[in-house]
Amino acid sequence: MSANRLIYLPLGGAGEIGMNCYVYGYGPEDKERLIVVDLGVTFPDMDGTPGVDLILPDITWLEERRDRIEAIFITHAHEDHIGALGHLWPKLKAPVYARRFTALLGRLKLEENGHPATPLTVVGARPEVVTAGPFKVQFVPIAHSIPESSALVIDTPAGRIVHTGDFKLDATPLVGEGWDPDAFAAIAAEAPVRALMCDSTNVFSPHPGRSESTLRDPIAELIKGAKGMVVATTFASNLARLKTLADAAQASGRSICLLGRAMKKMVTAAQEAGVLKDFPSTLAPEDAVNVPRANLMLIATGSQGERRAATAQLSRGKYLGMQLKEGDMFLFSSRTIPGNERDVLKIMNAFSEMGVDVVDESNGRYHVSGHANRPDLETVHGILKPAVLIPMHGEHRHLREHAKIAKAGGIRSEVATNGMMIDLTDGAPEVAEYIETGRMYLDGSVMIGAMDGVVRDRIRMALNGHAMVTVILDEADAPLGDAWVEIMGLPQTGKSGGSLAEKIEIELTDFLDRADTRLLRDDDKLDEAIRRVVRQVAMEEIGKKPEMTVVVSRLATE
Amino acid sequence: MSANRLIYLPLGGAGEIGMNCYVYGYGPEDKERLIVVDLGVTFPDMDGTPGVDLILPDITWLEERRDRIEAIFITHAHEDHIGALGHLWPKLKAPVYARRFTALLGRLKLEENGHPATPLTVVGARPEVVTAGPFKVQFVPIAHSIPESSALVIDTPAGRIVHTGDFKLDATPLVGEGWDPDAFAAIAAEAPVRALMCDSTNVFSPHPGRSESTLRDPIAELIKGAKGMVVATTFASNLARLKTLADAAQASGRSICLLGRAMKKMVTAAQEAGVLKDFPSTLAPEDAVNVPRANLMLIATGSQGERRAATAQLSRGKYLGMQLKEGDMFLFSSRTIPGNERDVLKIMNAFSEMGVDVVDESNGRYHVSGHANRPDLETVHGILKPAVLIPMHGEHRHLREHAKIAKAGGIRSEVATNGMMIDLTDGAPEVAEYIETGRMYLDGSVMIGAMDGVVRDRIRMALNGHAMVTVILDEADAPLGDAWVEIMGLPQTGKSGGSLAEKIEIELTDFLDRADTRLLRDDDKLDEAIRRVVRQVAMEEIGKKPEMTVVVSRLATE
Repeated sequence: MSANRLIYLPLGGAGEIGMNCYVYGYGPEDKERLIVVDLGVTFPDMDGTPGVDLILPDITWLEERRDRIEAIFITHAHEDHIGALGHLWPKLKAPVYARRFTALLGRLKLEENGHPATPLTVVGARPEVVTAGPFKVQFVPIAHSIPESSALVIDTPAGRIVHTGDFKLDATPLVGEGWDPDAFAAIAAEAPVRALMCDSTNVFSPHPGRSESTLRDPIAELIKGAKGMVVATTFASNLARLKTLADAAQASGRSICLLGRAMKKMVTAAQEAGVLKDFPSTLAPEDAVNVPRANLMLIATGSQGERRAATAQLSRGKYLGMQLKEGDMFLFSSRTIPGNERDVLKIMNAFSEMGVDVVDESNGRYHVSGHANRPDLETVHGILKPAVLIPMHGEHRHLREHAKIAKAGGIRSEVATNGMMIDLTDGAPEVAEYIETGRMYLDGSVMIGAMDGVVRDRIRMALNGHAMVTVILDEADAPLGDAWVEIMGLPQTGKSGGSLAEKIEIELTDFLDRADTRLLRDDDKLDEAIRRVVRQVAMEEIGKKPEMTVVVSRLATE
Repeated sequence: MSANRLIYLPLGGAGEIGMNCYVYGYGPEDKERLIVVDLGVTFPDMDGTPGVDLILPDITWLEERRDRIEAIFITHAHEDHIGALGHLWPKLKAPVYARRFTALLGRLKLEENGHPATPLTVVGARPEVVTAGPFKVQFVPIAHSIPESSALVIDTPAGRIVHTGDFKLDATPLVGEGWDPDAFAAIAAEAPVRALMCDSTNVFSPHPGRSESTLRDPIAELIKGAKGMVVATTFASNLARLKTLADAAQASGRSICLLGRAMKKMVTAAQEAGVLKDFPSTLAPEDAVNVPRANLMLIATGSQGERRAATAQLSRGKYLGMQLKEGDMFLFSSRTIPGNERDVLKIMNAFSEMGVDVVDESNGRYHVSGHANRPDLETVHGILKPAVLIPMHGEHRHLREHAKIAKAGGIRSEVATNGMMIDLTDGAPEVAEYIETGRMYLDGSVMIGAMDGVVRDRIRMALNGHAMVTVILDEADAPLGDAWVEIMGLPQTGKSGGSLAEKIEIELTDFLDRADTRLLRDDDKLDEAIRRVVRQVAMEEIGKKPEMTVVVSRLATE
């Protein structure tokens, strides 16, 4: 009995924003029954993950304990909470629970990845309860920027846990359920909250968050004042914002056209799930081109500057017959995520060159965040009065700040980053174990480990260029012909004024001609010697040491 | 006479922030005598310029007209105005003019690049005049974030030009000369301003800029409240900020230690030039390690997250004996330039993991910009009353917005981006010509053109990986042995579960065995056929099309 423990283990989202994946366990040590909350992704970038398509949590620890997993719960349908479901479910094969709209999008992901028969159960809001081994789980509606976002109440033999998911304290979110302090007060009144796992994304925002509904008038006013065509972009999943934008368009006599696959998919799913009501009817792009510019508003994907999304395509010229021009307006109703600034600015400048007026959220009138700010977090702490607070969903600095706030409010707290298993059984939270964890990459059609060295080699080639050397040795281990060098991503011409490749070839041929047979017979030594020559010539000629591939072909004695 | 024209040609800085380089000309068409204002650089990034060391303006147009260049003027010593001097001066070989401190740093750059004998003349402030062909040029002290920043008054037979350089309206900048509206009013009173070339960097900042002196109390208060060691970072060239930080340290009984080569170089040069007075004495790192943490403040380079700078090194562990720990404070007294966010956040999180309290400028208390905001720009327009305003130093969106403001104030304006030659002779400014221009890269020790394809190939290797194929054909054009494949930056294992390289080798060998002699004899066709096989196998196995190098070695008939 006293040997049973309650554990919490983040595998993604704790020490980063994105890629949420959390595990709870209850039972005897190393025999805990487990549940998983969220299977999210994060997105690659040229700096650290060039060529990668998607980044997923490394769930090896879970895979090895597959028989102990009771269920997977998805809090809401944002990519950083549900995006890995299709890719990772086959490794876990546990039943999946989500509310209707989330389940609908989850089902699409599973189908896209070839798992149409996955057990995915639609769950109603609290008081409905899912029993999963020792856990009793309820979905509690909470406001965020996508409908049916939910906190989870997780009852365990060691007490009640509240897992907030992503949330904000918005009583009037336009789409989705509003923040209801009484509902949360009731949760704490029903049973004391042993631990609160709480969203930390906006912990550094000092003022109370603003409601989605505060955008309605400013956006309507902005669009009414526009003379030409208006285009707006936001996250496709931000259905409340789509509604705000569409309503404003309609109020100013504009027809609406949705641009981008994700946008149409999201609106369709939301309408099907009944979570997006009274959305104005939309025109197909082929019909929209015939509408006068002053009567048209496009809502486009690509608010983060994604190269292939509708916004970037419009910035490069015509897209599905649409083309922006002098006098049009483009509204970024979105915040640029750190790291995407350059891509977004590039697009803004391209629009500027077309004579398009670009409006962004810098004055705070056309965008609000979907996450709880610092005072909002304090409000939630105060309502739920948890014995322990574990900050979640944030970079280390967010988690640390959130833990500080909790402690200042008299709540025990611990910063737990990915891989830190926390024992919550009783008393103070304690680190029970450090799990080896990390990231997996979906690269083209295969999964690779972040530490496999594949991406490291790509980065090295990008920084240093590449030289390839081919040497042929005859049956007697003597060089047959000259060394051959091909370079890629390196200057053609070095300091001596001639071809870099030829200069290396000459030095290599010279070296090989003078090399003794013992060296020429030793694969490893020859390889190393060739590399040394290439490096030296390259440093002299171009001041760089390229990555290298050396192929020594030995003609077999027949 | 009437055949003479006055032209303006930006070669850098117009359509971007950074890499400033502007040309003025006066004389008969295509025979204008020329002056160059600033030779700046901009910095590479992994997204667009991996492996590049420095980005410089392409001055081919100037090189081809070297005999027409009268002089080069440097407005101030920031890298984006002076950074290319050492690299580009040898291509122009015109006399260089700058004020004392700027000249001192310029001399260092020229020496570093092996041009110690460059004619570099120190010029005093207006009313001192430099005559350069048809131009009479005066340096007018103006406030910015580095001492001796100057606007230029450029008198020509076609009228007076004011070229602001970078500036802000700071009457109390602590270091350097304050903004003096009377001095600028006198310039306009003396002779009407034909054209104002005006800094546009902060045109989107709606409120009047704040003085450097407003930071003194908040920073002093922050440092006084710190318990452990304090480290602050800012641009090394921001001498006023260094002074503010050092004064605050001293006031709270802390010794100061400067970390980073650039920091020490800048302070030494400023002291030598007499533009940095009463700077507290500093400790060498080897002495600083013996000072109690509560009595020490480090001022470190690397505010933009540069990997090799002192701040990044501290975030990775020990640096010159210094190591941050729980209870220390790190202050970013700087703004993160778009594109550097990820690097800076990485460092902030590393400090957070050490238990260091990180303070940044997000609340506006610990940093002010060095550029004029929108109302400040309007003030300058009003004082100088130019006939024409050409916005400079900004991305397209900044230039466009600035031109709009000018026009709204009744001033003729034209957006001129890099390569657009503007005729300012009389009446409205007109585009006279489009010059082919762009960027050069310093890559290792050589200069390459931005359009050479070298960097494009690096990016492609980073995105797609690289496969190298070696095939040997004998004297009769028959394959000798099997094809050999080496991959780099690609998954080792494909969908079929085996080695990707081996799988490609098998398919290639099979293909070569079946290929007819005509194909095997044709270099181009064989190359293309091999690439097709590799692409196809790679797509099947890993869903990617790698970059490729194909080497077909033909054994010569002896």
